[in-house]
Amino acid sequence: MTLDRKLVAELKAIVGADHVRTEAGDVEPYARDATPVFRAVPDAVVWPAETEQVAAVLRLATERRVPVVPRGAGSNLCAATVPERGGIVLVLTRMDRVLEISPGELLARVEAGVPTSVLADAAAAQGLLYAPDPGSRTVSTVGGNVATCAGGLRGLKYGVTRNYVLGTTAVLPTGEVIHTGGRLWKDVAGYDLTRLLTGSEGTLGVLTELTVALLPMPATTNTGVAYFGSLADAGRAVDAIIGDGIVPATLEFLDAKCIGAVEEYANLGLRLDAGALLLFGDDGPEDVVDRNLGRIGEQCTDSGALEVTLAENIARSEALLTARRCALPALSRLGTLTLLEDATVPRPRLAAMVDRIDEIADRHEVPMATFGHAGDGNLHPTCVVDQRDEAAIHRAHEAFGDVFAAAIEMDGTITGEHGVGAAKLPYLEARLGADQMALLRRIKAAFDPAGILNPGKLGS
Amino acid sequence: MTLDRKLVAELKAIVGADHVRTEAGDVEPYARDATPVFRAVPDAVVWPAETEQVAAVLRLATERRVPVVPRGAGSNLCAATVPERGGIVLVLTRMDRVLEISPGELLARVEAGVPTSVLADAAAAQGLLYAPDPGSRTVSTVGGNVATCAGGLRGLKYGVTRNYVLGTTAVLPTGEVIHTGGRLWKDVAGYDLTRLLTGSEGTLGVLTELTVALLPMPATTNTGVAYFGSLADAGRAVDAIIGDGIVPATLEFLDAKCIGAVEEYANLGLRLDAGALLLFGDDGPEDVVDRNLGRIGEQCTDSGALEVTLAENIARSEALLTARRCALPALSRLGTLTLLEDATVPRPRLAAMVDRIDEIADRHEVPMATFGHAGDGNLHPTCVVDQRDEAAIHRAHEAFGDVFAAAIEMDGTITGEHGVGAAKLPYLEARLGADQMALLRRIKAAFDPAGILNPGKLGS
Repeated sequence: MTLDRKLVAELKAIVGADHVRTEAGDVEPYARDATPVFRAVPDAVVWPAETEQVAAVLRLATERRVPVVPRGAGSNLCAATVPERGGIVLVLTRMDRVLEISPGELLARVEAGVPTSVLADAAAAQGLLYAPDPGSRTVSTVGGNVATCAGGLRGLKYGVTRNYVLGTTAVLPTGEVIHTGGRLWKDVAGYDLTRLLTGSEGTLGVLTELTVALLPMPATTNTGVAYFGSLADAGRAVDAIIGDGIVPATLEFLDAKCIGAVEEYANLGLRLDAGALLLFGDDGPEDVVDRNLGRIGEQCTDSGALEVTLAENIARSEALLTARRCALPALSRLGTLTLLEDATVPRPRLAAMVDRIDEIADRHEVPMATFGHAGDGNLHPTCVVDQRDEAAIHRAHEAFGDVFAAAIEMDGTITGEHGVGAAKLPYLEARLGADQMALLRRIKAAFDPAGILNPGKLGS
Repeated sequence: MTLDRKLVAELKAIVGADHVRTEAGDVEPYARDATPVFRAVPDAVVWPAETEQVAAVLRLATERRVPVVPRGAGSNLCAATVPERGGIVLVLTRMDRVLEISPGELLARVEAGVPTSVLADAAAAQGLLYAPDPGSRTVSTVGGNVATCAGGLRGLKYGVTRNYVLGTTAVLPTGEVIHTGGRLWKDVAGYDLTRLLTGSEGTLGVLTELTVALLPMPATTNTGVAYFGSLADAGRAVDAIIGDGIVPATLEFLDAKCIGAVEEYANLGLRLDAGALLLFGDDGPEDVVDRNLGRIGEQCTDSGALEVTLAENIARSEALLTARRCALPALSRLGTLTLLEDATVPRPRLAAMVDRIDEIADRHEVPMATFGHAGDGNLHPTCVVDQRDEAAIHRAHEAFGDVFAAAIEMDGTITGEHGVGAAKLPYLEARLGADQMALLRRIKAAFDPAGILNPGKLGS
């Protein structure tokens, strides 16, 4: 579709002429997000500065039946912000203020476009922790994190973004501004719209302001690493750690292929003869952290670890976390197109699932390496191919289809933390069933009768 | 309304003749729940034994436009299960099995009608903690807890029921059975229906099975008590505790009137010259608990506590918790009708809110005592009157109306953990606004097009 001049003029009247772009060169960067392959060029990009402007844009869009795709940093990995039906991309990054840090209430209030790390730093400056830590946190926005219910490396102990959203200001597609939840930990007045909006991927409303919970900053953090002959051994160690009554902040794994790629990329001195690496970490009072890491180390040894090392200092601890954090960039160097997935299974099925993934990859003749959050059963099988090799890309997608089916078969899900977007929508019914899919559509219609908000995504 | 014979026969065909009652003496006990004043007699009471029976009853009810009110133990305090429009009360208490405790996955799977304490005991037998602990837990059901998003005494550190629901089996009013969420901590496939159903008070679907998260059982628990000259001093102590980076499991308060009533009721040796009592407790490794309680005690002393005592043994710790747990029965003895409320404000406003409550009670000439969860700002102002004194009951309701308005004015809410039900519905729009009320109604219609499920409650 193309937007008529009158509409463009009206958009400019709302947000200011400088904040509406329709030229090809200006809108092209908003044709993609961080998801490979998916691409669709919007007709206009609009940068509002305040909630009332968002409301005016949405009222207009509903009136004219123009699609609107809300977008933060565009760092999502499920094509949730690709404007598949054109229209307007509504970029929230001008709304980037930390409005309030309240140490007494253990909460922060921010505009939706504030980068996650800016919120985390503002909280840290007052001795407080914003617990959610998605991999994209230095670029992602808090609004985007809430819209996708972003996870991260600390999910086992701390939960995901959902657990920290106390309240929202949201604009409905028809232009009404609602305030859900607030500054309270306990509030049961009405349906839980705060949590319904969380993870709704910009299909039910546009989040413009968030109130999020903070925690006292833990006194100390430490990390250790264990190498295993196989992922099955690592999986047994994870079971033993949980069975010992420890829920550590971090429990991450890399398979052998990831270890090799990371070592070649970052030269961290990782052991290359291992079948799996388990990274574990905890935070809290120093004596508790020392004790927990010691116990985790013992459980790893008892489960047949080849080697267990605790970080002897902060620099080494950071280096170990880097090993996990750079798994994706390290793998990405192996080709020109990185397909990163996000299947999740119950924790005890982790090793079995990685075996299934390897078997599926072999069958489809695609290279696949897997890393992820062992504590959550959240796996990131990653396939790196040549972007010009369409046959390989096709085989990879076929393989991922099988991976999702295997995850569902194991009581798992097609996405643990990346979201559905356009990328996973074709697989969603297999997970939810036809009745629930129909219900999602009715809920979507309850919010968005004209179907203008992020059409073709969740709720479609 | 009266149910025709054919419908009753059909209900009997679904659940068995023994499990459908229509005689006045049999249905009368289901005219009320734990909420005073509210009463409405149902036409039939039906006890299903499995999800498919629930589905068949709901299909029939939608077809015939008969109201259905799902009910667990009926221990809610907001008239959420009073069948205001007659019809069928659907009692889930036959579905009372603990289906699974999975220590490896830190989760349990239960039927909706299992009593909360049965789940908690089954988990404890395997060294695991089911964290939500509503006051009614010995009688309430897990399904009822989820339907009302029940809170409790451990909310500050552990959160509320919402934070522990991983998955549900729910029957839609039109009879479809859906499975939301599952056994996973991270799962973003679709809108968050698990959390939307949590706290929906039986208006969107009937919960028949729940998967809930468990935690490793803390090694030890301890408790202490501090007396203050005034609630303002106690409030300052709470701020100081949080400011010191401690988030204890329990932080409860009683005002002077509650202290007096409890002491008269239970003879615990409480100090009667204090303006407020603060009960604090924590759980975890023994050294951490000792350290935290010591620090909390110091903060209380520094905030002007008259006296601080740590429980010297488990029996004494239990006695202190009893002081808080018996606040309601103790107050209830003062008259024949106990009106218990549930307003909530941001934690730093706690003392100011109690002052406002006292001022409102004086103005309306009703006796009001307040206790509650200091850590959450969740207040339970309680008014005990003679049930034959209609003028006093009227004044009490007027006073509570003013209390809710004051809570909203202080960025608080009309209900922190008890729910909306029929009791709070008249106050809900003041909290949510007209636009959000309209949205709740559209969401309700998306689930329940015929409006048969718990009509006249949330979403009406």
